[in-house]
Amino acid sequence: MSADRAVLGLDVGGTTTKSLLVDVGGRVLHQQHRATALGTDPVATLADEVDRLTALAAARGVTVVGAGVVTPGMIDEGTGTVHYASNLGWRDLPLRAALAERLDLPVTTGHDVRAAGLAERLLGAARGLDDVLLVTIGTGIAAALVSAGRPVTGGTGAAGEFGHAPIRPGGEPCPCGQRGCLEVYASGAGVARRYAARTGQQRSAAGVVGRLDDDPAAREVWAEATSALADALVTATLLLDPAVVVLGGGLTAAAGDLLDPVRAGLAAGLTWRPPPPVHLTALGSSAGCLGAAALAVQHAGLGDLLAGWSSADRSGVVVG
Amino acid sequence: MSADRAVLGLDVGGTTTKSLLVDVGGRVLHQQHRATALGTDPVATLADEVDRLTALAAARGVTVVGAGVVTPGMIDEGTGTVHYASNLGWRDLPLRAALAERLDLPVTTGHDVRAAGLAERLLGAARGLDDVLLVTIGTGIAAALVSAGRPVTGGTGAAGEFGHAPIRPGGEPCPCGQRGCLEVYASGAGVARRYAARTGQQRSAAGVVGRLDDDPAAREVWAEATSALADALVTATLLLDPAVVVLGGGLTAAAGDLLDPVRAGLAAGLTWRPPPPVHLTALGSSAGCLGAAALAVQHAGLGDLLAGWSSADRSGVVVG
Repeated sequence: MSADRAVLGLDVGGTTTKSLLVDVGGRVLHQQHRATALGTDPVATLADEVDRLTALAAARGVTVVGAGVVTPGMIDEGTGTVHYASNLGWRDLPLRAALAERLDLPVTTGHDVRAAGLAERLLGAARGLDDVLLVTIGTGIAAALVSAGRPVTGGTGAAGEFGHAPIRPGGEPCPCGQRGCLEVYASGAGVARRYAARTGQQRSAAGVVGRLDDDPAAREVWAEATSALADALVTATLLLDPAVVVLGGGLTAAAGDLLDPVRAGLAAGLTWRPPPPVHLTALGSSAGCLGAAALAVQHAGLGDLLAGWSSADRSGVVVG
Repeated sequence: MSADRAVLGLDVGGTTTKSLLVDVGGRVLHQQHRATALGTDPVATLADEVDRLTALAAARGVTVVGAGVVTPGMIDEGTGTVHYASNLGWRDLPLRAALAERLDLPVTTGHDVRAAGLAERLLGAARGLDDVLLVTIGTGIAAALVSAGRPVTGGTGAAGEFGHAPIRPGGEPCPCGQRGCLEVYASGAGVARRYAARTGQQRSAAGVVGRLDDDPAAREVWAEATSALADALVTATLLLDPAVVVLGGGLTAAAGDLLDPVRAGLAAGLTWRPPPPVHLTALGSSAGCLGAAALAVQHAGLGDLLAGWSSADRSGVVVG
């Protein structure tokens, strides 16, 4: 019975750490979201969390056969060292080796957005497709690329840092020190900051989207966000020719208000070729930890079982 | 003796068709450049050329064991059908199948810029590297990407159409119908057109580069070209994280006048990460047909021999 064996998937973000207990057949048994609070010894804190979730599983008669932990940043996928993760304050942390040393459980690590891309391919909006561009739009913006079924990690593990592409050359300053970065215009933080600069009012990006019907400033800021995103997708499409573009992250809550102008802008910006389909994530904010769990299943030598994940019951997952 | 067995590599361009006879060990035995004149039956013309070169080889006691033919355009690498090649006027031409039908020789086909990328990895400026971005800057601009040792072809074979990335959004019109494309500013045709628009004088891009010391208009147009190219490379580097960027195509004749500002602009546009090294092609305009020959060697089941190509005598190759 696959229900007796499960894996843990942890998605460690700058703000929230999401954890899933998933049986090896893909059924979600337990889900939790917590504020990330890693203290002075992040590896010990994460190992404790894995131990706690393993004990919780055992109490339910479930044996945990592995854990996958994914993080943002520049990651050497070969060694599992996180070279730089600004949101977590990590530099050259040998995460995989350090976790393996502390845990009795087989543990693997990966990149949060690339793990989300894996999950979208297994059971989400890119199911069955081999050439995928996933762009997550939250506080910041990052991308995961899949080419011919394999994740593109880059020469130093830093592929996908799409948020700082100079989409509006010479444009508004970015906290990174450059000007005109995609994130300046199209990230959640960027939308909120640009709306505040124009109106003096502090609102979240979701709050700005909620005012599109009645507030010209909200419409203007949002139109500039979706236009910048569409231009960025034109460039990525020309370069990479994805079979599908999947938008993930918090801003996908805007649904059609995001999707419609981005689709229109992408189609308008392409010559000679049809635009690839653009879809919203089917997995919401759980994509990263589902991908982390899938990595754990692969690491446990049970990768063949992932073919069945798309038909598993995920009613336990809160999408959003 | 590998010298007794050879392959043909043909690089069919909009203006020039370049052909090489290369022994399977990588030694160039014969090279020719001719104006492309394919007539009404391009497959028959190309097959005749292959037959002629095969006879020429036979007269020298060399047996041709395969041919590789590479072209620009959107190509299905699986079937060898060229879906669209604007410079050749082709649409949905089943090139590989049609050539195979006419020739007794094993024949394979491919994409010109991706073949150049293969050659640069085998024996050029990207030797031994698995994550490569090759950008060819000639009349137009195209790119070849290699990720973890494998060419990125995209979902429809159209990856690498970098010349039409909207690098200067809302900028000058491009013959493609869009505005602000990379090619508008940084291609040979773009540099010549922008110089003529500013001065009323017709000069080639090379002519513009030749005037940098004395002509402020030339300096301005060239600075805008290298700045647009650097910005495009910033975006591509953030997205793909190449271990090396190789610049190929006719504009590489500008040497340091191209390389120095592009390197400086790429470094200045990146935050948090060092720029990848940028090199000029080591193979010049022969990169495409060397890659085509390498494809033929692979197709003949002799791919193991390619490891020896980097040390072969290529003194017969005119680089330029």
